[in-house]
Amino acid sequence: MHELGVVHRTIERADRRAVEALSRFGVATVHEAMGRLGLMRPYMRPVYEGARLCGTAVTVLLQPGDNWMLHVAAEQVRDGDVVVAGCTTENEDGFFGELLATSLRARGANGLVIDGGCRDVDELRAMDFPVFSRAVNAKGTVKATLGSVNVPVVVANALVNPGDVVLADSDGVVVVPAAKAAAVAEAAAGREANEAAKRDRFRSGELGLDVYEMREPLAKLGLTYRD
Amino acid sequence: MHELGVVHRTIERADRRAVEALSRFGVATVHEAMGRLGLMRPYMRPVYEGARLCGTAVTVLLQPGDNWMLHVAAEQVRDGDVVVAGCTTENEDGFFGELLATSLRARGANGLVIDGGCRDVDELRAMDFPVFSRAVNAKGTVKATLGSVNVPVVVANALVNPGDVVLADSDGVVVVPAAKAAAVAEAAAGREANEAAKRDRFRSGELGLDVYEMREPLAKLGLTYRD
Amino acid sequence: MHELGVVHRTIERADRRAVEALSRFGVATVHEAMGRLGLMRPYMRPVYEGARLCGTAVTVLLQPGDNWMLHVAAEQVRDGDVVVAGCTTENEDGFFGELLATSLRARGANGLVIDGGCRDVDELRAMDFPVFSRAVNAKGTVKATLGSVNVPVVVANALVNPGDVVLADSDGVVVVPAAKAAAVAEAAAGREANEAAKRDRFRSGELGLDVYEMREPLAKLGLTYRD
Amino acid sequence: MHELGVVHRTIERADRRAVEALSRFGVATVHEAMGRLGLMRPYMRPVYEGARLCGTAVTVLLQPGDNWMLHVAAEQVRDGDVVVAGCTTENEDGFFGELLATSLRARGANGLVIDGGCRDVDELRAMDFPVFSRAVNAKGTVKATLGSVNVPVVVANALVNPGDVVLADSDGVVVVPAAKAAAVAEAAAGREANEAAKRDRFRSGELGLDVYEMREPLAKLGLTYRD
Amino acid sequence: MHELGVVHRTIERADRRAVEALSRFGVATVHEAMGRLGLMRPYMRPVYEGARLCGTAVTVLLQPGDNWMLHVAAEQVRDGDVVVAGCTTENEDGFFGELLATSLRARGANGLVIDGGCRDVDELRAMDFPVFSRAVNAKGTVKATLGSVNVPVVVANALVNPGDVVLADSDGVVVVPAAKAAAVAEAAAGREANEAAKRDRFRSGELGLDVYEMREPLAKLGLTYRD
Amino acid sequence: MHELGVVHRTIERADRRAVEALSRFGVATVHEAMGRLGLMRPYMRPVYEGARLCGTAVTVLLQPGDNWMLHVAAEQVRDGDVVVAGCTTENEDGFFGELLATSLRARGANGLVIDGGCRDVDELRAMDFPVFSRAVNAKGTVKATLGSVNVPVVVANALVNPGDVVLADSDGVVVVPAAKAAAVAEAAAGREANEAAKRDRFRSGELGLDVYEMREPLAKLGLTYRD
Repeated sequence: MHELGVVHRTIERADRRAVEALSRFGVATVHEAMGRLGLMRPYMRPVYEGARLCGTAVTVLLQPGDNWMLHVAAEQVRDGDVVVAGCTTENEDGFFGELLATSLRARGANGLVIDGGCRDVDELRAMDFPVFSRAVNAKGTVKATLGSVNVPVVVANALVNPGDVVLADSDGVVVVPAAKAAAVAEAAAGREANEAAKRDRFRSGELGLDVYEMREPLAKLGLTYRD
Repeated sequence: MHELGVVHRTIERADRRAVEALSRFGVATVHEAMGRLGLMRPYMRPVYEGARLCGTAVTVLLQPGDNWMLHVAAEQVRDGDVVVAGCTTENEDGFFGELLATSLRARGANGLVIDGGCRDVDELRAMDFPVFSRAVNAKGTVKATLGSVNVPVVVANALVNPGDVVLADSDGVVVVPAAKAAAVAEAAAGREANEAAKRDRFRSGELGLDVYEMREPLAKLGLTYRD
Repeated sequence: MHELGVVHRTIERADRRAVEALSRFGVATVHEAMGRLGLMRPYMRPVYEGARLCGTAVTVLLQPGDNWMLHVAAEQVRDGDVVVAGCTTENEDGFFGELLATSLRARGANGLVIDGGCRDVDELRAMDFPVFSRAVNAKGTVKATLGSVNVPVVVANALVNPGDVVLADSDGVVVVPAAKAAAVAEAAAGREANEAAKRDRFRSGELGLDVYEMREPLAKLGLTYRD
Repeated sequence: MHELGVVHRTIERADRRAVEALSRFGVATVHEAMGRLGLMRPYMRPVYEGARLCGTAVTVLLQPGDNWMLHVAAEQVRDGDVVVAGCTTENEDGFFGELLATSLRARGANGLVIDGGCRDVDELRAMDFPVFSRAVNAKGTVKATLGSVNVPVVVANALVNPGDVVLADSDGVVVVPAAKAAAVAEAAAGREANEAAKRDRFRSGELGLDVYEMREPLAKLGLTYRD
Repeated sequence: MHELGVVHRTIERADRRAVEALSRFGVATVHEAMGRLGLMRPYMRPVYEGARLCGTAVTVLLQPGDNWMLHVAAEQVRDGDVVVAGCTTENEDGFFGELLATSLRARGANGLVIDGGCRDVDELRAMDFPVFSRAVNAKGTVKATLGSVNVPVVVANALVNPGDVVLADSDGVVVVPAAKAAAVAEAAAGREANEAAKRDRFRSGELGLDVYEMREPLAKLGLTYRD
Repeated sequence: MHELGVVHRTIERADRRAVEALSRFGVATVHEAMGRLGLMRPYMRPVYEGARLCGTAVTVLLQPGDNWMLHVAAEQVRDGDVVVAGCTTENEDGFFGELLATSLRARGANGLVIDGGCRDVDELRAMDFPVFSRAVNAKGTVKATLGSVNVPVVVANALVNPGDVVLADSDGVVVVPAAKAAAVAEAAAGREANEAAKRDRFRSGELGLDVYEMREPLAKLGLTYRD
């Protein structure tokens, strides 16, 4: 696996058009289109209502109470990237705030996903710089210990490789491997088309029991109706 | 007790006028009027700000990671019902989303209370379909295992019988047994009247110590003032 | 240490101008200016978006499920105070609601910080009476057991002495000892000035690596770049 | 539903022979024999290793931080009962200790199941008085507020009626309705016989894939093997 | 309040005979004798069964993921001390293991109480070096950031001053202010004598209802018996 | 990334001698020797005291409430393997019990690591079949939905590839990539030798301040001693 104290400057980002295509879908749709893999644990939440992001991952491995590597990562960010940070332990310190957001935005970043805490929530909302985190916490961090940048990182129980597509909205955060981005975007489009047809049937009062032809399998398993 | 694999088609719903009456009160007031019983655990939260619901319970017992019974329940829903779902275990999967909400709304449902996860939060807010859940989670569920519909279910540590009134707002979720709905609505009205009088006294600067005549009992218990 | 069953009527409040000065800063800034001490645990959250408060602490030690001492505390409140309540145990009952808020406001209080539950959230938002709590919960409390008022209290792992300044916003809750209020306000002002300069540099695309001169210490610790 | 402030003196206990029969099985077996219903949430744990109990429920509804009703319940206990206590809220205070255990044992109780805290763990282990609780906590409680005894109570998300059989061991706590006790004991016996046969097959190296004839259904669902 | 980066070499320890006297009681008894104050939150647990400690506090304020100050504290330890460590944030890293235990024992320490993680549990059990912590965790820590030694510290929501008596057993951890140690020990002795008398009455089958003369107050509050 | 519904029959296991070498060390030592990577979150605990395991991973990806894939995995187990199971969501159902343990042991497995629940704890202790899990839970699971076997799986926030070495003891669970097993074992041995020397110095009363030469760096950072 990876090491501590390493920064990879060259990463292979997912195809820009595939990222653009994925950015039009919701997290729930993309997760389904992925075959139900790649979802972060649901404790990852937007720090303000309406936050939403999509981009290619610059990954970071943090040490508890130490945000040094976020500054190191900032230099590796290009237009359209999202910084995605895991931590060597569970820690809810405020690793990130408005100054770092200003820096990341100036470098072209679309937002941050961090398995840790975040502060300056009012300022981030005002800037509309989307952050998804496990906590909001005013506590600042030090700059004393090495982690790594652009190594594979596990974030909220999901594996993220540098260059993967990361998509986040009110429903959570999903990771799409760079090599699958185009295929997943296509599958998501197909899924949406299919859902539109179903939505019409549901709206007209038709039941899922009929739309999905569930009556027979339910009866076979022994579902019993009583009056 | 109840069984798995059973759907009760005939349930006795609380009186419609009593439900209508209860719907005008807040959860805190109704919980007090109930004698402080029937409240779900406070981890049950609205999935969007301002969500609020009141209706008669169509109950569901779910299996983890499986939302099949929500489709079965949809067929049992009538105008003014609320679907109330417990689970055989603690599970935060996204059992419910926009398509099921479309279906439930078409059937006349007023909302959902679920001791599990929910997804498509932006769409639910846009539809104003109120959901109270233990989590928001993009992860979808399968349709493979039988639960039950319209059996007594324990949801977030509160017992819900089919036909009971369920009321939810920013303060939480409370269950009123069908047979007590009218009496509880009346008690809630009395309570509100009483609170209005107290509010005026508090607003004028009078203290709870005097409004509730607490000085004597506090002194008897030995409360000591020091300068 | 303190006792149960005691109310201190005379407390030394922080200097009013220092409180006024502190009220202009955010919690994260003040926490930094304090030398990173005095922060409550991050589970303390505003009960509605945008809540914010600053004032001198009237402290309360509560018993679980019992809000009697909040009424006792109300009498000790003066203009510009904040009621700050700890509990002898972890308890999320709804100790506080709209009637008590009406009373506290009439007495001049600026808000409440409580390591317990709060209810009537919609009414509190409508009144714009800021509350920071560990939970929202419709469950009411009794008035049966003595705690204390204006003793030192530990609230969400932070020590609060009567008269200390308490500041809360979206980022959390911080406590500034009365004697340090003026110095901390001054340090906060210095910090903000310093941050403004840095913000400009970040906005122009300069990196934290250069702004904070981190390249050399990182290299010394062995940070390795790979292409 | 039930009320606060009521003690039911007359309850219908499960048949003594059925209880005796159930006491010979483990919780996991009985839960399966019940059709997978009636299990408490897994946060209920024995306060010492090896604790195990079985008996008929004398139920208690407690208020947070108040163990008065446990004393009221003690009078209702008969030989072979288990005290089963829920609480109107989540509370981990030490409601129960060695003195109450001495009292309950003198009345013939087989143990305690409590959705709250317990203290005097060393003494309880020494007495071998089994307690299953959500927490261990030295904090004592007051005697100030009414709850109820021998009403239906929800304990750790399971409904318990007075007289039901409650069985607890290292795997958790399960509730068997009084009327079903004999049938469940019989089903449990059948299940154990069936498991013994399977155990022999597993021990000889046979696979579950063959013992349960799973290869065909797995293939039908599309399970793919790759070398 | 205290500062970071400071070590106080001179502290006033509780009287040795009072500590010795307190060491003979259980935590629940001492907590009662203290008037129910000074208890740490119940998430503090022994890392091995049977661990128990009593001594005078050498306090430490740690930074997350950094155990440097434990080494600094070791030098301040005298015979009969207990190291009591809080952290500026919630952190479960393994701050402490067998080497530090060896060092602390050589300095005369009676054990450790830490609002953080601990590792080398098997070795600590083998040494019988008692540790009470919030977690067990193999993850090690760095030595990079200053905290403080022998300042007042909040540990698991309890205030600990250097020199206070800290007592821990299976029921939890309690802090007795140095100045109150003798009085609390005396009160604890009185309490035990009183409990012995009650234990005899309970053992003979007498009820708490009679031992504590509760029947009348219960009736006054309206407790109702039904057959 | 991986897919659902796939079983890889051919995996490359870590070198048997390296596994054997690693098995002689504790988890904390191996984690340090790995450069502090590869540790599972500390909620993974042994289901009985003294459990300990080491072996090569047969990985499983489970669905919530469904243990089908554990039976599929059993066929892939060889002498010296450990089954390591993640789940697509957080779920504490009892996926595993004595019958499956009997089967795995017959196939040569050394134990189980599962980010889910486990039951039959008494039987597992009696068999001495080590299991590390996130929960103990009597609730059984169904066999209805496909997961995968021998794909890369994230378990308790650690990435596990088939064939990696997994080591677990009272301090937690660590994963060593197959290719690094020998090097890590060697580093662990070096570390133990180094610790033995330090242990002697600590035992003789020498301080970490001197053993690790910390006095100078502490002074440079500004640590201040006061009398």
